[in-house]
Amino acid sequence: MVLDSKFALVLILVFFRGFTAALWPIPSSLSSSTEPIKLSPGFNIHLDILNPPSDLVSAVSRTISRTTTDTFQRLVVGRSAVDAKAVESARILTSLVLSLHPGSPVRSIADETNQPVTSRSEGYSLSIPHDASSATLVAQSTLGLFRGLATFEQLWCDYNGTKYLLDGGIEIVDQPAFPYRGFSFDTSRNFYPVADILRTIDAMSWVKLNVLYWHVIDSQSFPLDVGAFPELAEKGAYSLDEIYSQKDIQTVVQYANERGVDVVMELDSPGHTTAIGAAHPEHVACASKSPWSKYASEPPAGQLRIASPATVSFAEALFDSVASTLHSRMMSSGGDEVNLPCWEEDEQTQDDLAERNITIAEALNEFVQAVQGVIVSHGKTPFIKSDMVLTHNVPVDCGAGEWLGNDILGNSWCDPFKTWQRAYSFDRFANLTQDQYHLVLGGQMPLWSEQSSPENLDSIVWPRLAAAAEVFWTGEILPDGTSRLGPNVTSGRNALARLNELRYRLVDRGVKAIALQPKWCALRPGECDLDS
Amino acid sequence: MVLDSKFALVLILVFFRGFTAALWPIPSSLSSSTEPIKLSPGFNIHLDILNPPSDLVSAVSRTISRTTTDTFQRLVVGRSAVDAKAVESARILTSLVLSLHPGSPVRSIADETNQPVTSRSEGYSLSIPHDASSATLVAQSTLGLFRGLATFEQLWCDYNGTKYLLDGGIEIVDQPAFPYRGFSFDTSRNFYPVADILRTIDAMSWVKLNVLYWHVIDSQSFPLDVGAFPELAEKGAYSLDEIYSQKDIQTVVQYANERGVDVVMELDSPGHTTAIGAAHPEHVACASKSPWSKYASEPPAGQLRIASPATVSFAEALFDSVASTLHSRMMSSGGDEVNLPCWEEDEQTQDDLAERNITIAEALNEFVQAVQGVIVSHGKTPFIKSDMVLTHNVPVDCGAGEWLGNDILGNSWCDPFKTWQRAYSFDRFANLTQDQYHLVLGGQMPLWSEQSSPENLDSIVWPRLAAAAEVFWTGEILPDGTSRLGPNVTSGRNALARLNELRYRLVDRGVKAIALQPKWCALRPGECDLDS
Repeated sequence: MVLDSKFALVLILVFFRGFTAALWPIPSSLSSSTEPIKLSPGFNIHLDILNPPSDLVSAVSRTISRTTTDTFQRLVVGRSAVDAKAVESARILTSLVLSLHPGSPVRSIADETNQPVTSRSEGYSLSIPHDASSATLVAQSTLGLFRGLATFEQLWCDYNGTKYLLDGGIEIVDQPAFPYRGFSFDTSRNFYPVADILRTIDAMSWVKLNVLYWHVIDSQSFPLDVGAFPELAEKGAYSLDEIYSQKDIQTVVQYANERGVDVVMELDSPGHTTAIGAAHPEHVACASKSPWSKYASEPPAGQLRIASPATVSFAEALFDSVASTLHSRMMSSGGDEVNLPCWEEDEQTQDDLAERNITIAEALNEFVQAVQGVIVSHGKTPFIKSDMVLTHNVPVDCGAGEWLGNDILGNSWCDPFKTWQRAYSFDRFANLTQDQYHLVLGGQMPLWSEQSSPENLDSIVWPRLAAAAEVFWTGEILPDGTSRLGPNVTSGRNALARLNELRYRLVDRGVKAIALQPKWCALRPGECDLDS
Repeated sequence: MVLDSKFALVLILVFFRGFTAALWPIPSSLSSSTEPIKLSPGFNIHLDILNPPSDLVSAVSRTISRTTTDTFQRLVVGRSAVDAKAVESARILTSLVLSLHPGSPVRSIADETNQPVTSRSEGYSLSIPHDASSATLVAQSTLGLFRGLATFEQLWCDYNGTKYLLDGGIEIVDQPAFPYRGFSFDTSRNFYPVADILRTIDAMSWVKLNVLYWHVIDSQSFPLDVGAFPELAEKGAYSLDEIYSQKDIQTVVQYANERGVDVVMELDSPGHTTAIGAAHPEHVACASKSPWSKYASEPPAGQLRIASPATVSFAEALFDSVASTLHSRMMSSGGDEVNLPCWEEDEQTQDDLAERNITIAEALNEFVQAVQGVIVSHGKTPFIKSDMVLTHNVPVDCGAGEWLGNDILGNSWCDPFKTWQRAYSFDRFANLTQDQYHLVLGGQMPLWSEQSSPENLDSIVWPRLAAAAEVFWTGEILPDGTSRLGPNVTSGRNALARLNELRYRLVDRGVKAIALQPKWCALRPGECDLDS
């Protein structure tokens, strides 16, 4: 469903500013009236689809369940109790009907999620007339319906078990501004159990993020069980309890795909590979060589012997083995932060270069072509990192300042703390010319785990990551016509109020998102602004 | 037990650098041999004390229990398994005997904790001979024994259920450098359930912190149930579920006192009191007046009408009611960040001043004298905050950058992140002349809760707060004779290795302390230092 952007703008109504359902990311267009609506105790969702796929049926069940289990109360002084009268007299909505546009394919959400990123259909239309006579959610794909369900779930507040909405008469026509909206997750520096990844995927799906870019391995540990090389994890993981088994990987991928999240795995190489040396020292140059700062961007030093035919073959087999187990049409070979002195001082690498009469640059090119060729041979689009891109990212920083030893003040590249505001003001077209804009498919926010672990995962990621979700779903122009960027403080105020609500909703669902403000401020949008 | 500091230095042995039991805070003196010792499966602790107080008996039970339930493995590549042989051949320790020096009073830990802060006896001697023939813990008070138990618990690593120590032959003579070692906890900006406070107290006791400075109320909410004024919490708390009942307060105080933690309550006044106005608007000037930045340091504006005799009487009764329920010999009336325009533009305050023919400074003095007089009348030492002191603190920052709205980049006074290194390098004598040193009783690290809540409490506080514990327990000179301050990178290296161990021990006990480094580094002390 591709909407003409002019058409979308026409739908913006004056009610936007009074919209109490604080949707995040905010739909590209929405309107509402001031008629309160509540859900019938027997509220149900009907699928007007022949032979609906099981993951859509499950998604509908989860949404129905959440209309019971969510206990979020409206963020206002007195909370939902102040709406008691409105709730009492509200019209009663008994059901929501989901349907696909005529002629749309009926595929599982997982299948839709594994379509090429630029041809996924994620748009949807959600309508709840002011008289609550019916409610409809329509899309051109099951994935679009799933996005609409996420919006539907965010509409409701709880008052003594009754779910209500002050601004009924909802008309939402929504679609993403960018097709790629990701979270990059480093599970190597410190390990995260599968349950943490699944919870993160759930929360991602609630804000319509659609790519888990899994930075699964790095120099510090190799937690990935690879079919062809089980010894890599056995010897390279922190412990046998800190390995993602092949079954774990399938669990994560399946769970993610059913929630509209594509899992793009990165096997960072040829740098960031020291952990491979635990099982295969023959493939790693300058392994743990001292001083690390001469041979790597961070300890321990070590990168693949790209000039060695045996190592290139090993890398090809590694990529082949992993790629064969993944559904995604995308996979990454990483490629950041290669270090030249590491190879220059590695005797074997120098011998290999001399024997083959090639330069290190030629060897690097060969290596990258080789592993990316494997990715392509599996029908996947290969990613490669650019350090230049990297430096333009807005990273979710690494937690608690400096993690290298011997630094008295402990300030580091992690500083300053990357606030949600900074992420939210990210201009995805910065430093580009207009004719390059169409090349931008989206973006992702990374969590590097030098100082993160299961203990602070939720609080370091949420609700900050949601800022990226709105940057890439809603785009620059908010539905009231204002720009997210620049000095428009009003949009910032609205964003904070909505983000506060999202934070309380996340906590209500068991995601330990950090408080953005004292509760006093969260209950009084705008009253803790700098100019109020 | 007051040790002569020269005597303590004599005890430092060369084994310090190889000491594998990574104690935190590190004792003022310690030595060890290289004889491994393990605990007998039936290991027990005997109290060689007639009629031991029940909280000491309970503390001993907890220590015994932890020698079973703690599963921390040594932080080394391969973890405790690499010590398998040493564990097998280790001497077996069957019991630890606790006793008091002859003539010492036998009082409960709670009673000792409520002694005047400068006359508490927290020192202890712990001896575990290399042949494991016996182990003794001796002190001049039950509180000293409790501190020794905390040290004893930190000595052991787990290997398949066996608790062992590589460096037996332990001789520790320990005492705090400063009598006041606190954590200031703001429970007003966002609320924390009692369970969170109790868990924090436990962790504080493990690192020998001894004061919970409870910043219980502020302008944003009044979560304290006051006997004489129940309406204050009923109307001023965020909700009826976010109130510390009088029973809760007793639970916290009792729990803390039994763990050597004094609870010093602060009723911040006359500023930071807007929340009082919810029940008693007659006592609050400029309540929620706009723009808040003209009338307060942060929103909402509002402070007590100090010139009003009725308000002074109210404040006295408030302090009286709260003070009467507290055991501590200390209590604080806060006093930071009063705002003059708030009073200057308050008609009633101006009328009161005119009627009584006094200045605002005189009224302020009267007010402070009045509430501090109440504290004194309860036999307690009154605290008052100095903004100058405040600006010299090393705060545990407020979480995630700017919390005020309308700030595009979101940087704030919270930046930069206050790292553990910065806290650890705190010079408690900075800006003082030598003849003033004796006036320093210790210090405390605050957590301000604008952006903190139960969701991130552990990870924002731990292990950073432990840095303060060592600063004020061990003091400047470490047991190997080096200084904690200045460019002594070696001490920093040792500190990081020990702090990593503490972090893993905290996590093992259910405190979600943040990772300071990739696990790879934690397993290899020094290898992630800047110069290695």
